[in-house]
Amino acid sequence: MRIDIITVLPDLLRSPFEGSIMKRAIQKGLVEVHFHNLRDYSSNKHKNVDDYQFGGGAGMVMMCEPIDLCISKLKEERKYDEVIYMTPDGETLKQKMANSMSMLQNIIILCGHYKGVDQRVRDMHITKEISIGDYVLSGGEIGAIVLCDALIRLIPGVLSDETSALTDSFQDNLLSHPIYTRPAEYKGLKVPDILLSGNFPEIEKWREQKAYEHTLNRRPDLLEE
Amino acid sequence: MRIDIITVLPDLLRSPFEGSIMKRAIQKGLVEVHFHNLRDYSSNKHKNVDDYQFGGGAGMVMMCEPIDLCISKLKEERKYDEVIYMTPDGETLKQKMANSMSMLQNIIILCGHYKGVDQRVRDMHITKEISIGDYVLSGGEIGAIVLCDALIRLIPGVLSDETSALTDSFQDNLLSHPIYTRPAEYKGLKVPDILLSGNFPEIEKWREQKAYEHTLNRRPDLLEE
Repeated sequence: MRIDIITVLPDLLRSPFEGSIMKRAIQKGLVEVHFHNLRDYSSNKHKNVDDYQFGGGAGMVMMCEPIDLCISKLKEERKYDEVIYMTPDGETLKQKMANSMSMLQNIIILCGHYKGVDQRVRDMHITKEISIGDYVLSGGEIGAIVLCDALIRLIPGVLSDETSALTDSFQDNLLSHPIYTRPAEYKGLKVPDILLSGNFPEIEKWREQKAYEHTLNRRPDLLEE
Repeated sequence: MRIDIITVLPDLLRSPFEGSIMKRAIQKGLVEVHFHNLRDYSSNKHKNVDDYQFGGGAGMVMMCEPIDLCISKLKEERKYDEVIYMTPDGETLKQKMANSMSMLQNIIILCGHYKGVDQRVRDMHITKEISIGDYVLSGGEIGAIVLCDALIRLIPGVLSDETSALTDSFQDNLLSHPIYTRPAEYKGLKVPDILLSGNFPEIEKWREQKAYEHTLNRRPDLLEE
């Protein structure tokens, strides 16, 4: 997979891509991530990429031209499956969306900033608008980090233990059961006996039961899907 | 506000806190963020903080002791309003939760990693479990970045233009209306006439109408809340 991220703050994005799973995926050649600084596409002598809103109101708007130039250049170089805009009013990211998107070849991610982008850029180029949740962040960069991590870890070969991803929360619409590791007793708190029994069919039943109860208790909405 | 983040990957967290809004808030002294490397609390000679699951199964579990030692040390130093665990099975972060949490004084954020933390740590210390959405990430660090950004930008004095935060998406359960900036015409695409009219009461009406239509079209669930 190739991911091109268009941003006004490339430095903000760096460390998450230089650590953990995303770094490993890049090193293994399973994914390529390119940052594009939107200011490099500004025709303005101050390298501005934003301007005041037509009609008045607080907050700056990202201008059409730099974004259009950057996306158009990328599209000339290769075909993209999706041109994504990270925005709070996009479709909410869910695990199913991440699963299907993890199979794409080339994607562009445009990070909104300030009040957002000029509507005409959305009309011209954007094929998919994604929100990571019902809350506001200071910019689309953080949403892009979330989206990239959610997708990249699903690419075959990225996680060292593939069954681990299959048993994650949300893959079966159940939250996970409680988990324990050594010591069997810590400050008087004991691991449930069943987990020490060695009776694996019973352990499996216990886990399914606990996962179901936990989901019913916390997220009954997941059971209705 | 003081935020203490407990993590196995402090380097992964750095760049988002060194850029944009979060950097500015830290520089202004409006927020203090401290990273604690969990490995510093391992009593193990290899500095391990994880171990196999009791009962078998894929994925490692974060052990009780290092987390307990780190949280207990912090709690001896000051009183915390919340000890938060970032986990996909937590309560889903929403703007209302961010609004109220932005008024807290001291919080601890524990970043889950691998398969998650030993259940006994949750029972002993955690007062709030938060998920940023229904998808799985490679670790709680990315969730912590999201939570911190959502909270920090709401602290008075952090954003330069406070009305800007008040008119964000979700603050009134409406998505935002379309926005435009110069030029008035770009590649044949024009800004709606109303926005160039100078008739501010009519502009306000148009924006409310568009915000309502956009919400009805994309997120009718928000209108029912």
